Amino acid sequence: MSLTAAEIAENNARHATRMARKKAVIDAAIANATDEHGLLIVITGNGKGKSTSAFGTMARALGYGMKVGVCQFIKSRTDTGEEAFFGKLPNVEWHVLGDGFTWDTQNREQDIATAKRGWAVATRMLNDPSYQLVVLDELTYLLSYGYLDNDLVLDTLANRPDMQHVIATGRGATDALIELADTVSIIADEKHAYRDGVKAQPGIDF
Amino acid sequence: MSLTAAEIAENNARHATRMARKKAVIDAAIANATDEHGLLIVITGNGKGKSTSAFGTMARALGYGMKVGVCQFIKSRTDTGEEAFFGKLPNVEWHVLGDGFTWDTQNREQDIATAKRGWAVATRMLNDPSYQLVVLDELTYLLSYGYLDNDLVLDTLANRPDMQHVIATGRGATDALIELADTVSIIADEKHAYRDGVKAQPGIDF
Repeated sequence: MSLTAAEIAENNARHATRMARKKAVIDAAIANATDEHGLLIVITGNGKGKSTSAFGTMARALGYGMKVGVCQFIKSRTDTGEEAFFGKLPNVEWHVLGDGFTWDTQNREQDIATAKRGWAVATRMLNDPSYQLVVLDELTYLLSYGYLDNDLVLDTLANRPDMQHVIATGRGATDALIELADTVSIIADEKHAYRDGVKAQPGIDF
Repeated sequence: MSLTAAEIAENNARHATRMARKKAVIDAAIANATDEHGLLIVITGNGKGKSTSAFGTMARALGYGMKVGVCQFIKSRTDTGEEAFFGKLPNVEWHVLGDGFTWDTQNREQDIATAKRGWAVATRMLNDPSYQLVVLDELTYLLSYGYLDNDLVLDTLANRPDMQHVIATGRGATDALIELADTVSIIADEKHAYRDGVKAQPGIDF
């Protein structure tokens, strides 16, 4: 059904009124948000996009000249696209601190020792205000598997420098981590190419 | 309750057996995923992390030396961290194609004309196999608001070069876009600092 010129004009006018009203609501909300402090952002859930979301935010931070530290707690491979791209930039300190997944090592004591060594690196950054963003990639596993003392980790996060942002990623974030966070996104896995037999793609999956 | 040395050893042995079994299952799944083609990845939902996830994947792709095209369909500001960081890299072509949100323009006809101009830029990339990754940031709004012919958009996506990856972001992805996609993640907004009065932070939110 096609509209007459008068109907189109009326629709457009109604749209403009509705949008003006919406803008007033949004502007008021923006005016209300005046607080500033370092954010703890948690990206969890089973869907694709947790680590990449952290790396994309990192790109933003670097665009503003911020200094960024990255701890990858589980990964052991150092041939990823993200490390090739970010690893050598002057404002970036990049640490691959893992031995692979628990099903790769098959050794719980080794996993715990590795987690503690990795956390020592993170702790140094979380005590140093010169790092404006710290990415704790796959931190959640170290908490949910009990590889680290959960209270110690949460205390260190809570007591970090005021303006330091932190992004923690990984499946199954604990309730205590979610409680402490300022922003939490849960990524649901609606569909994944892998389940249709597509193998992990360089530049996309790693 | 503390465990005896024998109990700890038994737990560790049980852990190793369980993980060996898990590894066999995972290895079989990996061996099964042998197909390779360009992926259409859709990142939708109301949570924080959609565009940043696309930009993080882009960093991975650039780490592998891929050529990347970016269309930002809604955004009109060009002072974002992502553009400052990526915009001038030799393998990146970056286009800010929006006029702001509908409640900023308050003009539906202008929004439609802007969407069509933007889609022409995207179409050129989606017809050119030299772009190995195309990011269509905030595409979903152009479909759900009906600013573009949905069939035309889906046809263009479906008929793009075989090995070209595409990431489309934005809230409220249409069913047809989800159906066409290889991988879909839905990001739920569990918590957002903004609602606690924290204003949008440079380097994190833009």
